Amino acid sequence: MIIVLKPDHTEEERLQIVQTLRALGLSVHESRGAHRTILGAIGDEDALRDLPLESMPGVERVIPILKPYKLVSREFHPEDSEVAVGSVAFGPGPVQIIAGPCSIEDRQLLLETAQAIREAGATLLRGGAFKPRSSPYAFQGLGEKGLELLAEARELTGLPVVTELMDPRDTVLVAKYADVVQIGARNMQNFRLLKEVGNLDKPVLIKRGMAATITEWLMSAEYVASQGNRRIVLCERGIRTFETATRNTLDVSAVPVLKQHTHLPVIVDPSHAAGRYDLVLPLARAAVAAGADGLMVEVHARPDQALCDGNQSLKPERFERLVREVAAVVRAVGRELGGAP
Amino acid sequence: MIIVLKPDHTEEERLQIVQTLRALGLSVHESRGAHRTILGAIGDEDALRDLPLESMPGVERVIPILKPYKLVSREFHPEDSEVAVGSVAFGPGPVQIIAGPCSIEDRQLLLETAQAIREAGATLLRGGAFKPRSSPYAFQGLGEKGLELLAEARELTGLPVVTELMDPRDTVLVAKYADVVQIGARNMQNFRLLKEVGNLDKPVLIKRGMAATITEWLMSAEYVASQGNRRIVLCERGIRTFETATRNTLDVSAVPVLKQHTHLPVIVDPSHAAGRYDLVLPLARAAVAAGADGLMVEVHARPDQALCDGNQSLKPERFERLVREVAAVVRAVGRELGGAP
Amino acid sequence: MIIVLKPDHTEEERLQIVQTLRALGLSVHESRGAHRTILGAIGDEDALRDLPLESMPGVERVIPILKPYKLVSREFHPEDSEVAVGSVAFGPGPVQIIAGPCSIEDRQLLLETAQAIREAGATLLRGGAFKPRSSPYAFQGLGEKGLELLAEARELTGLPVVTELMDPRDTVLVAKYADVVQIGARNMQNFRLLKEVGNLDKPVLIKRGMAATITEWLMSAEYVASQGNRRIVLCERGIRTFETATRNTLDVSAVPVLKQHTHLPVIVDPSHAAGRYDLVLPLARAAVAAGADGLMVEVHARPDQALCDGNQSLKPERFERLVREVAAVVRAVGRELGGAP
Amino acid sequence: MIIVLKPDHTEEERLQIVQTLRALGLSVHESRGAHRTILGAIGDEDALRDLPLESMPGVERVIPILKPYKLVSREFHPEDSEVAVGSVAFGPGPVQIIAGPCSIEDRQLLLETAQAIREAGATLLRGGAFKPRSSPYAFQGLGEKGLELLAEARELTGLPVVTELMDPRDTVLVAKYADVVQIGARNMQNFRLLKEVGNLDKPVLIKRGMAATITEWLMSAEYVASQGNRRIVLCERGIRTFETATRNTLDVSAVPVLKQHTHLPVIVDPSHAAGRYDLVLPLARAAVAAGADGLMVEVHARPDQALCDGNQSLKPERFERLVREVAAVVRAVGRELGGAP
Repeated sequence: MIIVLKPDHTEEERLQIVQTLRALGLSVHESRGAHRTILGAIGDEDALRDLPLESMPGVERVIPILKPYKLVSREFHPEDSEVAVGSVAFGPGPVQIIAGPCSIEDRQLLLETAQAIREAGATLLRGGAFKPRSSPYAFQGLGEKGLELLAEARELTGLPVVTELMDPRDTVLVAKYADVVQIGARNMQNFRLLKEVGNLDKPVLIKRGMAATITEWLMSAEYVASQGNRRIVLCERGIRTFETATRNTLDVSAVPVLKQHTHLPVIVDPSHAAGRYDLVLPLARAAVAAGADGLMVEVHARPDQALCDGNQSLKPERFERLVREVAAVVRAVGRELGGAP
Repeated sequence: MIIVLKPDHTEEERLQIVQTLRALGLSVHESRGAHRTILGAIGDEDALRDLPLESMPGVERVIPILKPYKLVSREFHPEDSEVAVGSVAFGPGPVQIIAGPCSIEDRQLLLETAQAIREAGATLLRGGAFKPRSSPYAFQGLGEKGLELLAEARELTGLPVVTELMDPRDTVLVAKYADVVQIGARNMQNFRLLKEVGNLDKPVLIKRGMAATITEWLMSAEYVASQGNRRIVLCERGIRTFETATRNTLDVSAVPVLKQHTHLPVIVDPSHAAGRYDLVLPLARAAVAAGADGLMVEVHARPDQALCDGNQSLKPERFERLVREVAAVVRAVGRELGGAP
Repeated sequence: MIIVLKPDHTEEERLQIVQTLRALGLSVHESRGAHRTILGAIGDEDALRDLPLESMPGVERVIPILKPYKLVSREFHPEDSEVAVGSVAFGPGPVQIIAGPCSIEDRQLLLETAQAIREAGATLLRGGAFKPRSSPYAFQGLGEKGLELLAEARELTGLPVVTELMDPRDTVLVAKYADVVQIGARNMQNFRLLKEVGNLDKPVLIKRGMAATITEWLMSAEYVASQGNRRIVLCERGIRTFETATRNTLDVSAVPVLKQHTHLPVIVDPSHAAGRYDLVLPLARAAVAAGADGLMVEVHARPDQALCDGNQSLKPERFERLVREVAAVVRAVGRELGGAP
Repeated sequence: MIIVLKPDHTEEERLQIVQTLRALGLSVHESRGAHRTILGAIGDEDALRDLPLESMPGVERVIPILKPYKLVSREFHPEDSEVAVGSVAFGPGPVQIIAGPCSIEDRQLLLETAQAIREAGATLLRGGAFKPRSSPYAFQGLGEKGLELLAEARELTGLPVVTELMDPRDTVLVAKYADVVQIGARNMQNFRLLKEVGNLDKPVLIKRGMAATITEWLMSAEYVASQGNRRIVLCERGIRTFETATRNTLDVSAVPVLKQHTHLPVIVDPSHAAGRYDLVLPLARAAVAAGADGLMVEVHARPDQALCDGNQSLKPERFERLVREVAAVVRAVGRELGGAP
């Protein structure tokens, strides 16, 4: 921690700050320049995190030096983590594609979609039983009935399933059916929910919040890890910016930035980023070219009947094309796709 | 709902769209210009909300005409709502000031702060027992013990209390102590939590999410109202932008924009917007000048010992000055402050 | 300047960095913690600004300590500056209101508007002769003819005039007519234009760029000041964010933040921030409540015939009301309005 | 143009709006729903662009239907344009890589860098002689001397050169040396400069402004095209968002979105987007995977001595690797790289 003192700080103020730091067991290193005096607090930076140093008289600015996360940091765990889901694994090996409808709506449609994505090369099936909808009047998901259908689709196809948990009260229920529990973008800082999944013995997929910095996102992963569950996959899905041509702005740079800071696998959801089916293919190619370990794509057997996100869902034919095109790019960056189309 | 067709749409595509609209009970109005054909769907727009019209062949763009919220809309309820909390009321009458510490930490400090803010002119006391902290290693609040202390402070000062609910499992507990239940910015789209408070017989204060549009915010209020609870207060607290000189960017325009669209009371939290105590006063003055019905201000008897948000907390002396300065501006816009300093 | 070394830096890398710093005449202060080694470079930070230290092996992060501007900084000029324009002055004294049409279009309309705003209490007249329009097909301004009309309006009303300079080739022409030369938001980082007005003997009004940080804005003012012209007024006019309910998001916090960092006068343009006439009044009140030294408001005798920004222009009657309401708030914050209505 | 009337509009207001539209030669189509009356203005939408319809009594909202640009629109020019620069061409054919230093600083370094990038496979050389620097105290470029060195490097390597024009007064000078004239991000809405290059007989490369929407960017291209010059290349270089892990946020979706709306070639500058050399490779791969027609990459023989953007410049060795990796992705998407490495 670096503490920059105000140019007009008093000797008394300086002493008060030094004493506060020493009382926390830190040693203090002082450096006086022509315009500013700087204090370096050496020792456990965590001791300082909650301390409102900037409110102390004489302090101009406080600059943390260490990252606020540890368990998910590459600094303390240099090798890439691998997160296994049955026979599939996210990580440094093959690139995995999760596909399926936004929400589970109808048994027939789900099974049809599940088989189609499996044939095309997807290795996991997604589908929402509990849906976070911005309108109270919109379809909210089938609940447990949806989870049962998802399990049936898993049985039929052999694909492990990913589904969202929205409410800590549903943790046991969702965990009973899901192979991967998803934390949605709107719940990325629902810290109670993060603690819940931190206590599960299941992989967790954490989507990035619409306005979350990469550091905040990693702190959410740290929440899960701090409870004991280190089987975490991060999923970039676009951030909110001023541009309205797309639903969100895919932050493709987040992939290599995360690769520097964390050992966790990173995947990308091009469907929610684009918000339009006709942009999903190029964004999917860009994601794996940037180094993503996987994709999460919305596919629906009949998008024009979808009750949720139909505008951004691919038909099975287009998804097949996506897998082919993505496979070529994946090979170009020296990797392989998980599924065998 | 306006549907703009692509310039190269086929007659078959057009007919398909018209039939889809008619099947939903809408009448269709067609307008052909030199460059575009436009379909107007007349009738219940809600029937269309979930329909992915943009994924239909031949459609270029879909433009909703009506607002997606009703219960909270001024269109269907032109008069300002008043939300009463004991003898205090948010709405077209006096401007109310909620003040208190970010988190409840210590009995003595809380009681001292509560008495100080009451003497200065605050009409409600705030304090967090459950704290959403971005780090799992930070102080997470005292929980029920904190709620008990808050109740003690209410007894001592007579001020109604506002406190945050983070988890649907705590609803009964928090409602037992709180006079106003707060939904924090990070939970603005925690739809399950919104439904919970929608079933309470208590006023609810909904903070704006960091990246929430005004429309999304009103939709969250609609969630609460749709469950039956219409005692809702909206609280602007800054949005996330590229500017880093402040913690968030106070969107002061949200106040008059909301006044046009909704009948609900609107207050402003200048403390979270600024993130620094030395900007709270001018932002508080700006908020009431823009028409806010109230303020929510972090005050702490000893900010340099605060376990949460000490950097943005005011000392009681500075809060007194804030009340005086705000009172002058409130009178200048033809209103009165709720408390009698 | 603080240089944080990578945890795995080599001794050779460290020596190389230290030598580079010393070769620039800086002394180096070293601080070794458990997890990081930090180098403090003491001396003239300017020597380092252009040096790509972050590209040197072993460097994790470089943190500048001093602000990059000097002439406009309050640190080196603690008193508020006053920028006089004839008998009017921007600064710590009275709050001034600049008003007038977006563009000069018609002699009669301009003179009518000028007289109306003068009677209402404005102390300067604005009007564009050269207009930055996002479409090449939109009205681009009357050019010199417009400047002549502006001069005629000045003669008639006695109000000094503010007008925009868009092209360095027009500097002499615009300076011949203008009392204050305006640099528009889109030209805030048109550095050649800034140098031009830096050599004028005229006050310069610099609008904030739509995506400019406060620091970048002050650097643009520093450009002007570095050429010798210190008669600079800063004008906040809204920044671009995700919110679309307003044309831009008025960053009202910029007013007190600037007051801390610079001695220059700060005014606010609520018209461009809002983009809608019906939000201008509350934003104008908020601006002066936050401490603005003036306002810049679009007024048009017949907004429905305006060739530019008619949607955000006030009619004279509404402007009169604005002046009355703003005057009350100005008095509430202990100041006076410049004009005598 | 669609005009939505307020629910409480009067018959007189409606008639006034209809008459205004008809007076402009438009025919009006009316559609009355349960909650809103909507007017469709059929005819030349351009007639309405400057009209402040939203300021007319009774109007709730105005929705334009047609895009405001024509010459650059794919609607009126469905085939991809090809922009030739000597023997190189941007467009549907090979993917081109522009490389070189941020600024021209030293003859030896420039020539060395130019030869290195040519050997690695770049097909155009970039280098700035006039530099837009946010600080007046930073290196501002060598001016004409720099242009001469650039010409010498062209002679030596045979590579056409790209350089930035900042000031309309330098147009003739820059055009004398440049093969492609660049409009920088900060000048994307410097409309006078756009008109200047619109009159040149040279290709123009327009970088996206930091806060420019895709529509605004295309309007800037329309400015150039409207003057007669249709040899335009668009260059995405990152937009400003809340995320600070990268200097800007590369909006990779802009590539496919532009491909839908315009026939112009689209390239990407990963260096300015990232702001850090160690992110340039993955972003370059992502750009071509998304469909970019080219790249613009900062390369410097000795980045640690660069006077500008050294932190984001690649050394020649790393650039060679970039070309190899990009070539593989380019082939994976069915295209070829322009240069033969």
